Amino acid sequence: MTIFSKIIAGEIPCYKIAENERFFAFLDIRPMTKGHTLVVPKLEVDYIFDLDDDTLAAMMVFAKKVAKAIEKSVSCVRVGVTVIGLEVPHAHIHLIPIQKESDMNFQHAKLQLTSEEMQEIAQKINSNF
Amino acid sequence: MTIFSKIIAGEIPCYKIAENERFFAFLDIRPMTKGHTLVVPKLEVDYIFDLDDDTLAAMMVFAKKVAKAIEKSVSCVRVGVTVIGLEVPHAHIHLIPIQKESDMNFQHAKLQLTSEEMQEIAQKINSNF
Repeated sequence: MTIFSKIIAGEIPCYKIAENERFFAFLDIRPMTKGHTLVVPKLEVDYIFDLDDDTLAAMMVFAKKVAKAIEKSVSCVRVGVTVIGLEVPHAHIHLIPIQKESDMNFQHAKLQLTSEEMQEIAQKINSNF
Repeated sequence: MTIFSKIIAGEIPCYKIAENERFFAFLDIRPMTKGHTLVVPKLEVDYIFDLDDDTLAAMMVFAKKVAKAIEKSVSCVRVGVTVIGLEVPHAHIHLIPIQKESDMNFQHAKLQLTSEEMQEIAQKINSNF
């Protein structure tokens, strides 16, 4: 069971944004910017391009809805998208509200936010979903 | 007319990978790694999350097919995905064959490949599509 499956199952706490029957969205615990969110399929598949076409397509449409909620909740020019996938063997889309290209640089230091700040951001995005 | 629409129309040359009725794929002229490809909709829409759900879903499925062809053509652990979209006002998905996370760092110097090398890579990916 991956760490993301444990989060989905509620065995590990998270700052939840939204879910439906097939997908789950929650704040990245090591955010690049405020509102940085992960979208994962409930199906435990390592590599995003190993998802069947229908699941991949539906995941992107779900991610779009999450991105629109992020845009309404935090100040950003747009929401960037990244899939790297070398660390956790469970496909995940990073949705990162950005002002500039370098906000997408994973080698930058991550933000340090309090749990109160994370909770507040998650609730705001959730309320706009 | 965006630079990508000019490429799709054949007004600006490119190292073409594949196309169908709705999408077009070609090598990024400033590649992060060998095989770095851009996937664009023929529909000229600036922001990827402004694409209608059906087009967005179909674009991701098309990108998956391109990614599978890239995997067969160049040495990589997997194909990473990035959408930033602050430069060209025409939605595009970067497909980047990666060995490690830092291969996704857009602030790294881009590869300098000859036109012969670019042509060879494009033909190889095309033949695996």
